[in-house]
Amino acid sequence: MTAPQINGQRLLSSLQALGQIGALPGGGVNRLALTDADRAGRDWTVARMRALGMQIEIDAIGNIVATYPGTDDLPPVMVGSHIDTVRTGGLFDGNYGVLAGLEVVATLREAGLQTRRPLAIAVFTNEEGARFQPDMMGSLVYVGGLALQDALAICDADGVSVQSELQRIGYQGTAPVGTPVVDSYVELHIEQGPVLEQLSLQIGVVEGVQGISWTEFTVEGQSNHAGTTPMVLRHDAALVAAQVAVFVRALSERMGGRQLATVGAVRLSPNLVNVIAHTAVFTVDLRNTNNAALTQAEQELHAYVEQAALAEGVRVTSRSLARFDPVDFDPMVVDLVEDEASILGYSHHRMPSGAGHDAQMLARVCPSAMIFVPSARGLSHNVHEHTAPADLQRGAQLLLQVVLARANRPS
Amino acid sequence: MTAPQINGQRLLSSLQALGQIGALPGGGVNRLALTDADRAGRDWTVARMRALGMQIEIDAIGNIVATYPGTDDLPPVMVGSHIDTVRTGGLFDGNYGVLAGLEVVATLREAGLQTRRPLAIAVFTNEEGARFQPDMMGSLVYVGGLALQDALAICDADGVSVQSELQRIGYQGTAPVGTPVVDSYVELHIEQGPVLEQLSLQIGVVEGVQGISWTEFTVEGQSNHAGTTPMVLRHDAALVAAQVAVFVRALSERMGGRQLATVGAVRLSPNLVNVIAHTAVFTVDLRNTNNAALTQAEQELHAYVEQAALAEGVRVTSRSLARFDPVDFDPMVVDLVEDEASILGYSHHRMPSGAGHDAQMLARVCPSAMIFVPSARGLSHNVHEHTAPADLQRGAQLLLQVVLARANRPS
Repeated sequence: MTAPQINGQRLLSSLQALGQIGALPGGGVNRLALTDADRAGRDWTVARMRALGMQIEIDAIGNIVATYPGTDDLPPVMVGSHIDTVRTGGLFDGNYGVLAGLEVVATLREAGLQTRRPLAIAVFTNEEGARFQPDMMGSLVYVGGLALQDALAICDADGVSVQSELQRIGYQGTAPVGTPVVDSYVELHIEQGPVLEQLSLQIGVVEGVQGISWTEFTVEGQSNHAGTTPMVLRHDAALVAAQVAVFVRALSERMGGRQLATVGAVRLSPNLVNVIAHTAVFTVDLRNTNNAALTQAEQELHAYVEQAALAEGVRVTSRSLARFDPVDFDPMVVDLVEDEASILGYSHHRMPSGAGHDAQMLARVCPSAMIFVPSARGLSHNVHEHTAPADLQRGAQLLLQVVLARANRPS
Repeated sequence: MTAPQINGQRLLSSLQALGQIGALPGGGVNRLALTDADRAGRDWTVARMRALGMQIEIDAIGNIVATYPGTDDLPPVMVGSHIDTVRTGGLFDGNYGVLAGLEVVATLREAGLQTRRPLAIAVFTNEEGARFQPDMMGSLVYVGGLALQDALAICDADGVSVQSELQRIGYQGTAPVGTPVVDSYVELHIEQGPVLEQLSLQIGVVEGVQGISWTEFTVEGQSNHAGTTPMVLRHDAALVAAQVAVFVRALSERMGGRQLATVGAVRLSPNLVNVIAHTAVFTVDLRNTNNAALTQAEQELHAYVEQAALAEGVRVTSRSLARFDPVDFDPMVVDLVEDEASILGYSHHRMPSGAGHDAQMLARVCPSAMIFVPSARGLSHNVHEHTAPADLQRGAQLLLQVVLARANRPS
């Protein structure tokens, strides 16, 4: 089967049309999960699916799966992502993966083509986790990583449950959770980072999702007058927080490879110019594609914090906010993405995903992989999120060809 | 003249009585300048002064000066401090200097003693600066460092002026500002720091007030996803703030001597665990008794900030929040304090004041010095501010003997 060409202009129009739903005054989108805006976005998307003759199933956690039939009765090849956004989101995060899936089906349909295996497009509920935690909720429930009843009972900051909001917006369906059983999953997504742009590359061949370790430290020292307390008598909580921030940068440089380390949040008390802080609460975000290295980084961090606390005479406690092992995507699907990118003549680069995605959940139950396209200035979760039309088009064309190869392969 | 003994119990009772005015529920005091509580504290203090037969003068900025006559018509020896407090103040900061002055006069009066020079007790307006800035306002106006009209026009955060509040509470007096012209000024104060307690000493012989340099830095980097942005592509504002905090600690250790350095306030934006901060606003508080050393510290700080900003690819701007040169007290008065402490057999130690005091203003116009007594755990501007009764008694006794020596000395 010779691959037809996807319609880049139609894809762009779809992204812009969906971006009108929950649009923010100055640009960008607010379509938090299970809000009225999310409902409107779902309604729009489902209408598009129906217009393509696809069969729609909605499960009890609100995941939408639309199927384009294949010639054989085999498990479908699934593509997809999510259409919920953060409070100040862009047009592309998630939406691109779903709408590129629709563009793939529209292109095949126009060309009168049908694949051996069916194609499924999934819209997973609450990927962002901006309103209900955890994030990637719909796909996590889909793969059995979180019990449906537990997920439905989760409440937002106002005490409103997932269940009640699903019912309110009319998206608690009857399809059994975890169906259909799929052949494989391929997610197309914007990179949300600066690597492809910096390297002037068109496609990221995503090999996996790096592991994440979030720790919150609370340093308790002693508050005193900055003008009357000799340096040797201080127990400065802010200093220890600063030392750790400097340490983790040095640690990441020393470890090299894919070790990332960030202190993004610090709160000092009383936070005054002339008072030594008695308390510093700060977070450390460590990430690595290699779990052993990530564990080593965590150990070195904790050892350093202990030593710094002892030296300054402060007390430090910590709690883990998140810990996810790295996920490796299926080598055969990753290779397929790379091969098809080469065939298309797109410049590409194997890379991990720095952020979490539904694909890491699907990887638990089927061969999975992801395709990245460049994000301008690496911006995401930001109203200025942007990907050039030509990049959007290339990503969708690659998705089409990967899907054709997967769906048409012999058993 | 053999010095009589001050009455420690009476002094303690006075401190407790004044501490009832504006008392906070759980302990401590709130008598912000020119509030109803400040008026009540002033009324109580003036009544005590009158009961001692002293003559009261109030000037146009609300400074209260009570005089106990001498045998000769000479400029008075002045003692005093302030009775305004911070919002969550203690019983001793300022109040101790004023009430110990009253105890000195009460003791002399009981003993039927009169000094050659008159004794004056000053209560300076708005030393704390917690409601109206600048701090040390009354003494600054007294010595001509701030024009009366400018001071009167200053407003609090609610837009209420010093003038209107002085009139409202009935403390805008008619005495010419800067009168009486005084022979010398001695201020007794709690240390507000931990040095005397740590050294197990009874008296601090205060040689001067250290210089202060406050700078606010604003670092502007680039916000990005902590999981998708390689370390080498980061412009992390939080990291630069942390590096500077670590640097100033090392700087103070390297410079040694009296160099203090504190980063007490940091605000990151957006201050999230998984987002590299685009902005960090932080303060650096540098202090030194030696102005050349303080200037050197400032220069090294700015050079380091520039280098760190360059290395991380961020932009840094700074603004000075305060810059006061060190003040040296009069060597003869300082020596007198030390000699009298030795005569009394009190253990003592020459030291600078880390905080600002009215005495540094009076030092511009007359020989001045200060006496410190220990602060438990170094706490001040804190409802747990505490000084042991025996320490309070020793400080007042020393004040009495210094005053007698100054006031009775030949011309």
